[in-house]
Amino acid sequence: MIERLCLIGVGLIGGSLALALKAADACHYVVGVGRNPDNLDDALRLGIIDAASHDAVAAVKDADLVVLAVPVGMTESVCRSIAPALDPNAILTDVGSVKGSVIEQVTKAFGAVPPRFVPGHPIAGTEKSGARHAFASLFAERNVILTPLMHTDPDAVETVQRLWLACGAVVETMDYAKHDRILAATSHLPHMLAFGLVDSLARLQDSDEIFRFAAGGFRDFTRIASSDPTMWRDICLHNRDALLQALTRYEDDLARLHDAIERGDAEVLSEIFTRAKSARDQLVVDL
Amino acid sequence: MIERLCLIGVGLIGGSLALALKAADACHYVVGVGRNPDNLDDALRLGIIDAASHDAVAAVKDADLVVLAVPVGMTESVCRSIAPALDPNAILTDVGSVKGSVIEQVTKAFGAVPPRFVPGHPIAGTEKSGARHAFASLFAERNVILTPLMHTDPDAVETVQRLWLACGAVVETMDYAKHDRILAATSHLPHMLAFGLVDSLARLQDSDEIFRFAAGGFRDFTRIASSDPTMWRDICLHNRDALLQALTRYEDDLARLHDAIERGDAEVLSEIFTRAKSARDQLVVDL
Repeated sequence: MIERLCLIGVGLIGGSLALALKAADACHYVVGVGRNPDNLDDALRLGIIDAASHDAVAAVKDADLVVLAVPVGMTESVCRSIAPALDPNAILTDVGSVKGSVIEQVTKAFGAVPPRFVPGHPIAGTEKSGARHAFASLFAERNVILTPLMHTDPDAVETVQRLWLACGAVVETMDYAKHDRILAATSHLPHMLAFGLVDSLARLQDSDEIFRFAAGGFRDFTRIASSDPTMWRDICLHNRDALLQALTRYEDDLARLHDAIERGDAEVLSEIFTRAKSARDQLVVDL
Repeated sequence: MIERLCLIGVGLIGGSLALALKAADACHYVVGVGRNPDNLDDALRLGIIDAASHDAVAAVKDADLVVLAVPVGMTESVCRSIAPALDPNAILTDVGSVKGSVIEQVTKAFGAVPPRFVPGHPIAGTEKSGARHAFASLFAERNVILTPLMHTDPDAVETVQRLWLACGAVVETMDYAKHDRILAATSHLPHMLAFGLVDSLARLQDSDEIFRFAAGGFRDFTRIASSDPTMWRDICLHNRDALLQALTRYEDDLARLHDAIERGDAEVLSEIFTRAKSARDQLVVDL
């Protein structure tokens, strides 16, 4: 049971976590820290947080759990400011989509990774942003990946794990580099492709007419292009190497598909589409 | 009112059209032509068709409307076989995702485009295939594009238009080349990107583990990769030029995004993502 949770960043993920923990009776009191007063008002009104603050330093005092739920690029500066005020017994965790860079930034801010820092990432979300879109069941049956380091306090890992389980999540532990490589493939790369496609079409002269004839398939395909630009800019900047590797591989494969279309190679096209359909149908059965 | 509809190809689209026309009381009797006996049995059982046939030539006799709902690559061969049996007063239409090639194939098969042939394309569908997935409301509030030629009988165009309106669709008329260019951008290109991504990931050594951590965003993004491989092979082969143009433009834009990630260019990344989010949010409002 967490007495006092300090939530730094009260957006879709942070807000949903607070709601889920309260619903599970796993947390008594939540102080939300953020820079947008309207968003904090929403969070108070919706019962996501019990108190709002613009001052992270004051808010982390007396907290037994501090959750960083800000764009990953803000990790170092937030940690620098809270470091002197953080109780050494408090557990610090985060929800960032990139783990290597977060660990690096925390290391820089604290001088070394605090033993009670548990890097985490719930693989859940929607294309919406802000506290008003938060909901308690966001993490139900979703994977949460924790990437503790060699010297991370096992007790802190267990507490964070129990909190995510209380939210209905499935918790898995793995190496941070592996996390960053897997997420680059299944999340960061698809976001690049969707953002890229919508931007590419939006810049066409007759984009209005083109979009007018888009159907449901296009809407689903581009849903993730409605995601928060700042969050995604930071993911690109902070998971650069793994993302570039996945993107390069994809570009090479797309070039081969391009060639097959250009050659009119029915056999290769059938092969690619059949293999993809079979993998995707299997994925849906598994999910 | 159509007395006798001959439906060549009883899949998701053809089957849904038959159901919608029957529900609207716009059609009395449907003969379904197909090569898969199980699928025709499904269609009979579900009341989609009133009679099943493997013989298109016999089935088109006495039909006042013939609908081609087969993969676009089959258009020429089907038309060659039905040409001698088709009543000159019968209306012929199709539902293919490509219009230039369909018109070309019909021209080859008949010697010239029959005046009562109305090329059409309902911009609707799901990732499912086959008669058992057909449903009457598939076309409700969906766009249907007709691409009649200069000498197409206006009376035939009007009849086909009325039938689609009876299915709840919004009907628009445009030049076939423009249709093919618009659909290449909003439908054919996204399908290539989704098929390409799933295939690319499926061929990785640890693809099982990678897919295991895919979330809802990935499922939506790749939904269209579950579409029928044969249908999509034919679309690639038959809308090659427009698709290659759209694909090349996309590859160039993706290369620019790649460069921005490589350079760590926060400003360009923010620009692209913000522009894409704004276009996509607007699109959802409009749809």
